[in-house]
Amino acid sequence: MVTAPSNPALKPSLKAVGEARSTITGNPLNPVELHQMNAYWNACNYLAVGMIYLQDNPLLKKPLDPKHIKNRLLGHWGSSPGMSFTYIHLNRLIKQYDLNTIFLAGPGHGAPGILGPVYLEGTYSEIYPDKSEDEEGLKRFFKQFSFPGGIGSHCTPETPGSIHEGGELGYSISHAYGTVFDNPDLISVVMVGDGEAETGPLATAWHSNKFLNPIRDGAVLPILHLNGYKINNPTLLARISHEELEQLFKGYGYTPYWVEGSDAETMHQAMAATLEHCITEIQQIQTEARRSGTISRPLWPMIILRSPKGWTGPEEVDGHKVEGFWRSHQVPLANIKTNPAHFKLLEEWMRRYKPEELFDETGRLIPELRELAPKGDRRMSANPHANGGLLRKALRMPDFRDYGVEITKPGRIEVGNTQPLGIFLRDVMRNNMTSFRVFGPDETASNKLQAIYEVSKKVWMAEYFPEDTDGSELATDGRVMEILSEHTLEGWLEGYLLTGRHGFFSTYEAFVHVIDSMINQHCKWLEISNQIPWRSSIASLNLLITSTVWRQDHNGFTHQDPGFLDVVLNKSPDVVRIYLPPDANTLLSVSDHCLRSTNYVNVIVADKQVHLQYLDMDSAIQHCTKGLGIWDWASTDAGEEPDVVIACAGDVLTQEALAATVLLKEHFSDLKIRFINIVDLLRLQPETEHPHGLSDRDFDSLFTLDKPIIFNFHGYPWLIHRLTYRRTNHRNLHVRGYKEKGNINTPLELAIINQVDRYSLAIDVIDRVPKLKVAGAHTKEQLKNQQIECRRYANEYGIDKPEIVNWKWPE
Amino acid sequence: MVTAPSNPALKPSLKAVGEARSTITGNPLNPVELHQMNAYWNACNYLAVGMIYLQDNPLLKKPLDPKHIKNRLLGHWGSSPGMSFTYIHLNRLIKQYDLNTIFLAGPGHGAPGILGPVYLEGTYSEIYPDKSEDEEGLKRFFKQFSFPGGIGSHCTPETPGSIHEGGELGYSISHAYGTVFDNPDLISVVMVGDGEAETGPLATAWHSNKFLNPIRDGAVLPILHLNGYKINNPTLLARISHEELEQLFKGYGYTPYWVEGSDAETMHQAMAATLEHCITEIQQIQTEARRSGTISRPLWPMIILRSPKGWTGPEEVDGHKVEGFWRSHQVPLANIKTNPAHFKLLEEWMRRYKPEELFDETGRLIPELRELAPKGDRRMSANPHANGGLLRKALRMPDFRDYGVEITKPGRIEVGNTQPLGIFLRDVMRNNMTSFRVFGPDETASNKLQAIYEVSKKVWMAEYFPEDTDGSELATDGRVMEILSEHTLEGWLEGYLLTGRHGFFSTYEAFVHVIDSMINQHCKWLEISNQIPWRSSIASLNLLITSTVWRQDHNGFTHQDPGFLDVVLNKSPDVVRIYLPPDANTLLSVSDHCLRSTNYVNVIVADKQVHLQYLDMDSAIQHCTKGLGIWDWASTDAGEEPDVVIACAGDVLTQEALAATVLLKEHFSDLKIRFINIVDLLRLQPETEHPHGLSDRDFDSLFTLDKPIIFNFHGYPWLIHRLTYRRTNHRNLHVRGYKEKGNINTPLELAIINQVDRYSLAIDVIDRVPKLKVAGAHTKEQLKNQQIECRRYANEYGIDKPEIVNWKWPE
Repeated sequence: MVTAPSNPALKPSLKAVGEARSTITGNPLNPVELHQMNAYWNACNYLAVGMIYLQDNPLLKKPLDPKHIKNRLLGHWGSSPGMSFTYIHLNRLIKQYDLNTIFLAGPGHGAPGILGPVYLEGTYSEIYPDKSEDEEGLKRFFKQFSFPGGIGSHCTPETPGSIHEGGELGYSISHAYGTVFDNPDLISVVMVGDGEAETGPLATAWHSNKFLNPIRDGAVLPILHLNGYKINNPTLLARISHEELEQLFKGYGYTPYWVEGSDAETMHQAMAATLEHCITEIQQIQTEARRSGTISRPLWPMIILRSPKGWTGPEEVDGHKVEGFWRSHQVPLANIKTNPAHFKLLEEWMRRYKPEELFDETGRLIPELRELAPKGDRRMSANPHANGGLLRKALRMPDFRDYGVEITKPGRIEVGNTQPLGIFLRDVMRNNMTSFRVFGPDETASNKLQAIYEVSKKVWMAEYFPEDTDGSELATDGRVMEILSEHTLEGWLEGYLLTGRHGFFSTYEAFVHVIDSMINQHCKWLEISNQIPWRSSIASLNLLITSTVWRQDHNGFTHQDPGFLDVVLNKSPDVVRIYLPPDANTLLSVSDHCLRSTNYVNVIVADKQVHLQYLDMDSAIQHCTKGLGIWDWASTDAGEEPDVVIACAGDVLTQEALAATVLLKEHFSDLKIRFINIVDLLRLQPETEHPHGLSDRDFDSLFTLDKPIIFNFHGYPWLIHRLTYRRTNHRNLHVRGYKEKGNINTPLELAIINQVDRYSLAIDVIDRVPKLKVAGAHTKEQLKNQQIECRRYANEYGIDKPEIVNWKWPE
Repeated sequence: MVTAPSNPALKPSLKAVGEARSTITGNPLNPVELHQMNAYWNACNYLAVGMIYLQDNPLLKKPLDPKHIKNRLLGHWGSSPGMSFTYIHLNRLIKQYDLNTIFLAGPGHGAPGILGPVYLEGTYSEIYPDKSEDEEGLKRFFKQFSFPGGIGSHCTPETPGSIHEGGELGYSISHAYGTVFDNPDLISVVMVGDGEAETGPLATAWHSNKFLNPIRDGAVLPILHLNGYKINNPTLLARISHEELEQLFKGYGYTPYWVEGSDAETMHQAMAATLEHCITEIQQIQTEARRSGTISRPLWPMIILRSPKGWTGPEEVDGHKVEGFWRSHQVPLANIKTNPAHFKLLEEWMRRYKPEELFDETGRLIPELRELAPKGDRRMSANPHANGGLLRKALRMPDFRDYGVEITKPGRIEVGNTQPLGIFLRDVMRNNMTSFRVFGPDETASNKLQAIYEVSKKVWMAEYFPEDTDGSELATDGRVMEILSEHTLEGWLEGYLLTGRHGFFSTYEAFVHVIDSMINQHCKWLEISNQIPWRSSIASLNLLITSTVWRQDHNGFTHQDPGFLDVVLNKSPDVVRIYLPPDANTLLSVSDHCLRSTNYVNVIVADKQVHLQYLDMDSAIQHCTKGLGIWDWASTDAGEEPDVVIACAGDVLTQEALAATVLLKEHFSDLKIRFINIVDLLRLQPETEHPHGLSDRDFDSLFTLDKPIIFNFHGYPWLIHRLTYRRTNHRNLHVRGYKEKGNINTPLELAIINQVDRYSLAIDVIDRVPKLKVAGAHTKEQLKNQQIECRRYANEYGIDKPEIVNWKWPE
């Protein structure tokens, strides 16, 4: 029996105690440098504590008084010292090597560890002049932290230099890789919390190194922070042996370097030596690859930093271990105002950092320490890559009209809606070969977007076989990103957009729920960023949802879920857009619009299979510009008040709605039908609720004041009610959609089960138009029999009847 | 520069070709056994091909004719041969060692590889007599596969022996671990697809071995199937060196064993030897731990099986490589009916398996092969653990009434609502020490459920430090499951429930979205299982959503998202329940109900902070039984028709609604208010839509036909509209809820921003009750000023005013 490494000899070294132990040794810092680095770190730590506790007396010029303490103590001390420790060691190398570097803080609530150095290097005061570099500014800086009306304890959008808030954990590594694709000079340093490292998205994101090209892309330097603890628990990775952890990262394809300990002096030397080694190794890898032009996947360096949680904080409080334990996760000393012992401990703790030696009389960091930070844009807090809108250039767009499908009459020919889009995206890529990428989980070809491969293939830095040339479409310089992890793709795309580039993500409708929470967080980031004047606009996140619920002939029930729209609609109307183009030309028009837009999450729903085509390019543009409209050619109301409104949103649903009108016309030649198609879903909302919303007047004039509306909707039907419940004619609105019924079904069978098929819709009309109530009884029976016959056919032959499959709008 | 293992010497071995290469060698099979194993495998493969292609002539007794071929070819061949290969080698060991084993098929669409052996061992025909073991039954068995009205190409609930459908990828490992917790005799073998292995949830689930106790729990034997390809791409793990992959799994804490190659004969020997070695190693680990009572974390064995995708299928089609390439992912030969070359290839392929030697005249597997399968319940397809309801015993429940909070008057005392629940759960655990576990991401204590630790701590099999005894609550035999991965927790819980046990999962409201898609899939599994007579009922999945949106004082905007309810409500009403208990006693009553229920996903929303208490235990039970009701003590309508209905759902929202009624009473002594609290959210739906729905008559009598209703709701407000849009008085329904507005706010401030606070609600009433329209103008101004004053106070002092914090229902 092989047992785990319970080897007692290894055990002590699982603790972050004592003199530094590191893979790379040496003493690169001379005594003066060492002293200065440590003083700068003290200043950072002092600020972190100040943010959590103080609302006044920020430099402790006066003895600490309870009234200086915030009424409510919020914030997280635990990971802050390790973060600022890393930050300032990076500063040294940025200066020394003139590095172009940004910093991503993975640990959840570590903002004090970042805000400190950001303030000390002057950026904070430049952006927020009231948080000036003096006593008064520092007081405001402290007070605003985790304070009503102030800023949070994550690296929120308000934080200069942040592109990664980290409120939800798991995305720091994929974000970091996203930032360096096509940024050959950028080194993104990402601190990964060992709590966060337990999440699934993070556990697979380490494999991002198999998609990084050392010639074309920049580099990511991951630093796993073995802080040791979560809220109340040890972390997994901090409690397995060195051997196991090292093997894990070698298995992930990295060269891991250790820095462990608690002794400040030796830890500074170890970190300085190790970071420099890693930066040099990155530069060597890049130089060699760029010089030789030879591509092989390097084993990129990464650092495992084991330092005590709450490092330099109170060692023990009320008889409990605090430094180096989970008890320092949040506020290590509570009840300061009421507990004199804690009060005393706090003042001692803060004074240990010797603020009087760090700041001058006015409250400004002393000049010799100020010198340690990089200058201008080289400061990680001022690097334009972390305010990517500054670097964003509009895409050079081909004219989407040139990619349209030739339509002479509506509903006569079938085309795969995503195919022309694929050709369009190919040329978008051709025109923007350093600022545009396409993302998808193993489905770019399956989604019929494979024309893209004509100009750029899938990036692949792992091993190749000879047969890969037969259609696998792999290349080390590919610009199509495919990995079977929606989390990783979404993280890459967000990182890519946040650093000023553009992208397009296509994915499976049912499984886009995998990234519900990531989309939520990105929407929240956009919503807040929009309110921050200095944040420049970034390209929208464009999400094509395909392989939709209505075409799951062989995948069945698990692959049927159109509910992502419900999730997206919960986010702020300022950042969310939803489009359901019914055919190829409208899909092109919508996609062009989305690719040009900024600061939105654009969701486009379009199935990848062949569908009937309705609108020529001019009509498509007009229709998409309005967002919804009457299709006169499909209507029989001749501009008069109709008997019924048939509305639809979504490709399959539009076809069935059209087929229903044909059935109705056949049976009831004098029925006045108004046919409305909706592309831009948010047009349905009142204008007071969403910027795209229709006025009540316009809505009423389209949907009438009192006529029945039969609405055939792509998703769950209640979503339409949610959007329209305030409208005058809502009481006559009858919505059909997916009702969570399905299995292995032919397309028509699935439609029938959920009552979105032509027969059900025609029956709905008969049931709701007063003049058909009696006159239509016989027709209704006929329609029901046709449904039964269609289902019987499908169950016997495994396919829909040819007249259904080949159905077209009549000439 | 260190480069990746592009070592040419290693490269060939990244391919699954030629004679077997394996860590464990030897020839455990004698020639007869070898021949029989291979024949059995041929039968499995024959069936897999038959399922994809044939609707008639199942034994090829006649020459193949196009009419024997299905009209539409659906299904997935790629991973099937590797799956059945593994399945039948397990059969050998189950017989030899009398193992208690179930099989989880991770690869997405590999059902043909499972359905084949399940049919051959007789279970299928026992359960579905029309799919009998004869030619006619086999024909039906073939035809139903991926056919309308038939079964899907995953291991859907209809598949005997399956607890893991795998329609969505990523959960096979966590499911497998869930099955073996507290099942010391069970060995769950889980085949992990190398596509699936790229997902985040799967990448972290490997760490589940740090939570498995070899004395108390069973074992998981993971088999990573390096099938090599996804739909159109190679897989990552198949294209990194042996060295890297081996390090990865050693890093995950396993002992990996390789089996690689394509040559059937040597692969049979290698797999037989390796599987036997692993089973023996598992038994040794368990025997030794159970004998000695000494717990250390073993390095459990796992297997890396590299076999060709589409193994034994067509090598080449139309000049393209197919076997061992992604082109064999789905249907390797298409257009059979129209392409004579393909038609010929298909028949040759099927006849290569020699069906005439495998099946007797009647179409039954020949006796000497039948002998190879285990018998009765030892068949993996008939093992009761895979139909867990058969083994489920009701929990031995303490009387929840004994845990209630003493209430003499409503709204006078404050208690943390989840604290009494924690004590109740402690005793549920005490009574059910082998069949109940509690799950949560590092938050059991943070959620105030820590009383549970008095009877069982957190399971932890990684290293220990001395300080862990100070409140970390770790133990190798703990029954509380904490890992910072909602995916892993959810997967464990599902596996645990599906094998007949019980559980309780508490998690952060905003981040429960991380498992939206998993909950969707579990709901779908339950929905289908409910329709399958032989599937026994399993315990409900109970999810406590806490740390809610309204109490995010220091976490801010990223932690505010009550939208999980919208996701859950899209699932079938047959399987979904939502409860919003307003206080501790109602939370106890609801939780007791949920723990006793079966086949649901029960979502309970309750904040972990202290809240006012309203109902004594009897009233709480009565209120929860009704699901909603008028609170007479808070109403002023004295049983008459009210002027306004104030309704509320959720703890914080109830308090603000109550405070609003107090304000209104102060100002308008003759205002008739009816106060309604809703616990069971689905009561709001029509009875035609949900089994819990109120009749229109009851709804009308509660909510009136025409009076204004002000509804204060915990989540996004439109959800209430979605539930009630068909109700008579919907037009007068005015819902307040979270509107995606927030930051670092005090509780009252956040409420004000989203207009769910007492003042906003009182203003809403003034605006909507006709008789207050004029009379209330002055009061409205006062209320607005109070809001402004409250916000000013919060922004100055960082806390809410004491009269708000200490607010109580008046005596």
